[in-house]
Amino acid sequence: MKRKITLKHIARELDVSISTVSKALKNSEEISRETKEKIQAFAKLYNYKPNNIAISLKNKRTKNIGVIIPDIVHHFFTTVFRGIEKYANDKGYNVIVCVSDESFDKEVINMEMLANGSIDGFIMALSAETQLKNDYNHLKQVTDQGIPLVLFDRVTDEVNCDKVIIDDQAAAHMAVSKMIADGRQRIALVTTEDYLNVSSKREEGYRKALEEHNLPVREELILRLPYQYEDEKLSEVFFATQEVDAVLCVNEIFAVRTIRFLEDNDLRVPSDVSVIGFTDGILSRLSNPTLSSVAQHGEEMGTIAAKMLIDKVESDIEEGEEEYRTEVVEATLIERESTRSS
Amino acid sequence: MKRKITLKHIARELDVSISTVSKALKNSEEISRETKEKIQAFAKLYNYKPNNIAISLKNKRTKNIGVIIPDIVHHFFTTVFRGIEKYANDKGYNVIVCVSDESFDKEVINMEMLANGSIDGFIMALSAETQLKNDYNHLKQVTDQGIPLVLFDRVTDEVNCDKVIIDDQAAAHMAVSKMIADGRQRIALVTTEDYLNVSSKREEGYRKALEEHNLPVREELILRLPYQYEDEKLSEVFFATQEVDAVLCVNEIFAVRTIRFLEDNDLRVPSDVSVIGFTDGILSRLSNPTLSSVAQHGEEMGTIAAKMLIDKVESDIEEGEEEYRTEVVEATLIERESTRSS
Repeated sequence: MKRKITLKHIARELDVSISTVSKALKNSEEISRETKEKIQAFAKLYNYKPNNIAISLKNKRTKNIGVIIPDIVHHFFTTVFRGIEKYANDKGYNVIVCVSDESFDKEVINMEMLANGSIDGFIMALSAETQLKNDYNHLKQVTDQGIPLVLFDRVTDEVNCDKVIIDDQAAAHMAVSKMIADGRQRIALVTTEDYLNVSSKREEGYRKALEEHNLPVREELILRLPYQYEDEKLSEVFFATQEVDAVLCVNEIFAVRTIRFLEDNDLRVPSDVSVIGFTDGILSRLSNPTLSSVAQHGEEMGTIAAKMLIDKVESDIEEGEEEYRTEVVEATLIERESTRSS
Repeated sequence: MKRKITLKHIARELDVSISTVSKALKNSEEISRETKEKIQAFAKLYNYKPNNIAISLKNKRTKNIGVIIPDIVHHFFTTVFRGIEKYANDKGYNVIVCVSDESFDKEVINMEMLANGSIDGFIMALSAETQLKNDYNHLKQVTDQGIPLVLFDRVTDEVNCDKVIIDDQAAAHMAVSKMIADGRQRIALVTTEDYLNVSSKREEGYRKALEEHNLPVREELILRLPYQYEDEKLSEVFFATQEVDAVLCVNEIFAVRTIRFLEDNDLRVPSDVSVIGFTDGILSRLSNPTLSSVAQHGEEMGTIAAKMLIDKVESDIEEGEEEYRTEVVEATLIERESTRSS
């Protein structure tokens, strides 16, 4: 990011408030002619270029936060949203949501729309297509404009900003290790196509746990389903030809379908096959049997993301001086009926 | 609504475009002095008061639609949202969502924020608290400003606007009649507290169907749960003391919990007790046994709502001349395992 002179610099140099600088540059009647001339001359001297958005942000906060999530039906994202909202509302902020529908274009359009003065900052999880394209220019544009951005869950190293994640590798490792400790040997993984950052990390954790316990990683036990599956079937072939005794699923929908599929094929959960999912949403609690699940603590992630964002919005730190943090929320395994041996 | 002179009236009277009138009233350079003087004189004569929002709407559409839903975790609302979004995106509109969290205040704050020039119109379902308070001034303010509004599902007769609903009474009646046709006699209703319009309508349908078939309505078979329940238990007393052979639930969460409760009490679904829910979301499809459910066709409701709104946004009809429609989406019963007799 190219270092440029900001309102704050001018204010500091001339010992006036940021608001005064902003008003002076807009030739406001509220500011004395002498002060205006001084500020305008200084700005001209240092080639100050007003950034409309930044000015509006510094001086007239909208008290709105923009949230962009990939999917409104996905329980995890809505849970994070709830955490964001609770914290933001407590601090007097409203929250506006846009949904990218896993589409790169929609993510870009939504960001442009909201960045146009409607909000003080963004909290978002990347769409699947954005991760597939690996194109983050729209995010960089926003951060270059000085608009605070916090990424959660689906993040990228390509953008400098605050982030909140869980350690997906460690979480999957924990779940698989638990299955091994329970005496399971042939552990399958039901995951999504692997351009999704979180799925790759979970697969790494799955592989690492098996290797550490000297169990072979069998590629035929890794089933990759499209993220947005259309058909109602899990691969019958997959389960029919393998003597699987445990399954780790990267989300709770896959897990609930796996349970149903196993039971329809006369395998009992958990006595024949134990199942662990990710997400720990309403499906995990209400499935039958109830689903053991890696809790990602979505609400806590949302709270942390909102706190990070609002702290940045309300801070006086200038662009270029900022430091970015990545907070890691610890995942925990919630044990329910799908792993309890009876 | 007090009849007042609008841009359209001036345009029609002077045989110029609405855009020309608007520009002339803002003294735009684009309009000839002669035309400006004529328009300004006419406006003064008839005491025209510009409504900033209306002007911006007619001349500079934002191409954004504001959606306010009571709850982002509720599958039905997110499904409607998807229908809204698909239609709106096809027509070149973005969709912004705010969540009222069933709170009157949040609904009002969200509306005020979005009505401030960010959007071309609203699509919303009323919060529980708004229905409880029976206060719709914030909606009337918006429609008085000429901002198009479409209500869906949770609607009120107090506000004149377009509406999309299902016939909740008929839907419940259909579900109960089906149970009776299957030979069920002691049919329970698990519903919410009754200030929610949709729940009352469903209860009416339940009562009507029983009466029509000469079955007694037993008040002790009607269980009212808080809309946002906290505890994990269904009333054990309720089921333990009654020989219920069927249960109609006003949402799928209640239904899935009812199934689990019955099974934990050694009653089999559907052979001992059949269960029908409302919503037909992911829980209905993934529960075990799968849940027979009244499909409210959320996506279709969303599509209709978006079409109604965009038609109004893009029409040239002036306030006061408008006619409002209520579209009724026909509910259907999706039969699954929870009612199929084996």
